[in-house]
Amino acid sequence: MNFNIKAISKDKAGELQHKIDQKTKPLGALGRLESLALQIGCLQNTLTPSIEKPTIVVFAGDHGITAEGVSPYPQSVTYQMVFNFLVGGAAINVLAKQHQIVLKIVDAGVNYDFAAHPQLINAKIGLGTQNFLIEAAMSEYACEQAIQKGAEIVTQIQADGCNTIGFGEMGIGNTSSAAVLMHLLTDKPLEKCVGSGTGLDETGIQHKLKVLKQAVANRKIIKSPLTVLRTFGGFEIAMMVGAYLQAAELKMLILVDGFIATAALLVALKLYPNLLDYCIFTHQSQEKGHRKLLETLKADPLCNLEMRLGEGTGVAIAFPIIQAAVNFLNDMASFEEAGM
Amino acid sequence: MNFNIKAISKDKAGELQHKIDQKTKPLGALGRLESLALQIGCLQNTLTPSIEKPTIVVFAGDHGITAEGVSPYPQSVTYQMVFNFLVGGAAINVLAKQHQIVLKIVDAGVNYDFAAHPQLINAKIGLGTQNFLIEAAMSEYACEQAIQKGAEIVTQIQADGCNTIGFGEMGIGNTSSAAVLMHLLTDKPLEKCVGSGTGLDETGIQHKLKVLKQAVANRKIIKSPLTVLRTFGGFEIAMMVGAYLQAAELKMLILVDGFIATAALLVALKLYPNLLDYCIFTHQSQEKGHRKLLETLKADPLCNLEMRLGEGTGVAIAFPIIQAAVNFLNDMASFEEAGM
Repeated sequence: MNFNIKAISKDKAGELQHKIDQKTKPLGALGRLESLALQIGCLQNTLTPSIEKPTIVVFAGDHGITAEGVSPYPQSVTYQMVFNFLVGGAAINVLAKQHQIVLKIVDAGVNYDFAAHPQLINAKIGLGTQNFLIEAAMSEYACEQAIQKGAEIVTQIQADGCNTIGFGEMGIGNTSSAAVLMHLLTDKPLEKCVGSGTGLDETGIQHKLKVLKQAVANRKIIKSPLTVLRTFGGFEIAMMVGAYLQAAELKMLILVDGFIATAALLVALKLYPNLLDYCIFTHQSQEKGHRKLLETLKADPLCNLEMRLGEGTGVAIAFPIIQAAVNFLNDMASFEEAGM
Repeated sequence: MNFNIKAISKDKAGELQHKIDQKTKPLGALGRLESLALQIGCLQNTLTPSIEKPTIVVFAGDHGITAEGVSPYPQSVTYQMVFNFLVGGAAINVLAKQHQIVLKIVDAGVNYDFAAHPQLINAKIGLGTQNFLIEAAMSEYACEQAIQKGAEIVTQIQADGCNTIGFGEMGIGNTSSAAVLMHLLTDKPLEKCVGSGTGLDETGIQHKLKVLKQAVANRKIIKSPLTVLRTFGGFEIAMMVGAYLQAAELKMLILVDGFIATAALLVALKLYPNLLDYCIFTHQSQEKGHRKLLETLKADPLCNLEMRLGEGTGVAIAFPIIQAAVNFLNDMASFEEAGM
């Protein structure tokens, strides 16, 4: 695994700021839209950036830890939701359609044998991970494979003309993985990382916390990001890690979704800190750990709509804001153009 | 002035909540989108609400108080920005175009004689208000006229097929009007209501505060909303008051913009409290008084992007979120439809 991720050039920053400041509005009056325009202009190294074929990739995978009752939903919901994505019935379908975002569904390792389907990218690493209370979630080889597959998928999407990408996920049990990743890679106490996921009550959360504490205690705690990833992660999470890194190598604009997507990003950032330059944090999830995780990354998300659904729905809901930043930079009149 | 504004029927609330809860997602996982869907469904009294011909009306007017140096920009910027709206160069043009929102520009009382223009609605009450440091901003008759015109404009827009409307404004000096309205109608100290507007520095803010304190001291403080409005308001603000009230009478969904738009709403709410049922607060402006004003109204705005531009830009930036609420309610699969 070797990625070439450069810090973003700031060569155009001065000219971009000047262009922003000459628009027919008080200085700074477009707030976050202005900092977004600056970031995207620098990333694309141009005064006229553009969003091309914006794409959300939803990685789906199953988790052995669900055997421990850490989710109120059974594992089978993962494959059922994949079917729902394929027929266009899920929240992410509706939101992606609204904003003309290309949607790709990836079987990263769901516990179901899907027939070939034109909308489904088969990147299956296995029929779900192992139960990480008992053993590592995946082998070193499987983890590498997942990262590699994630990178390949992004390479193909970029070759098809996309320059702006976000990653969503589906996997019953994956807030458990994300919570442990956050705990081990940020040193926050596990209590601050574990939340209700798809809807555990307080008793359920306490049980989940107990299981995850035991799981961490059972394993030798090694804080190497890749070891943490393979021990407690999921196939969809590992695949997202590769996807983030490849997207940054290809200088794509990366839109970061909620808790699980940010936990995957955290792993990737530990390996390649420059990745952060390419990221826009789209929303703050209602899932308990997300706010603290964002704070750790000094990230200030664009939206807080109390959503906690995953699937890339945060990326989709915030996407028009990012498009607006590019549009005002390109299309608003300057004082000079307006004769003011 | 007499409006017939009923509280929204909650007849469909139970069925709507059931429909929301049957969508293929954990209970409550779409957060604010769910409460929006419920509100809009109740307002339209249907399980399948829709957004028809969404429209933003920008009311422009000039302010006599600018003679006191309360803004860093000269009054002439108001008419120059109206020209900018008409040629499509302003921020609101770019955002409205992005979201296919119909944009209407109204001359409510700009200090400039515009030639007839197909994009400009002529509703001019006068060539700007009087300087309210010295005398009332407008006569009782002018204020009534403005309210009436605002109502008529909305009636016409609704007749053209619009059911969702937001109001923006342009008027150099109008944060001064809005601050005094807020102060007198909420009893918050003027210091909490006065901000930097289009970009005053601290010295400028202190001067503005001094002018506004003196203006309030000079007038007999009468807390009747209409008297406060005519004494310290603007033509565009009075017109927005009529527009809000008529929109609610016509059972339209109302999208509330930033500080000045909310101050106008405050006047209208004092007259007809049921109006609040029809409103969605789209964003929190960076202008100092707005957060406190929203708190007074127990309003929790959808976005906080540190914008402070007016023109209806907050309405436009938040519009896709409102559309998303309607879309998920109509288009997402239920568990039954997905065979789950």
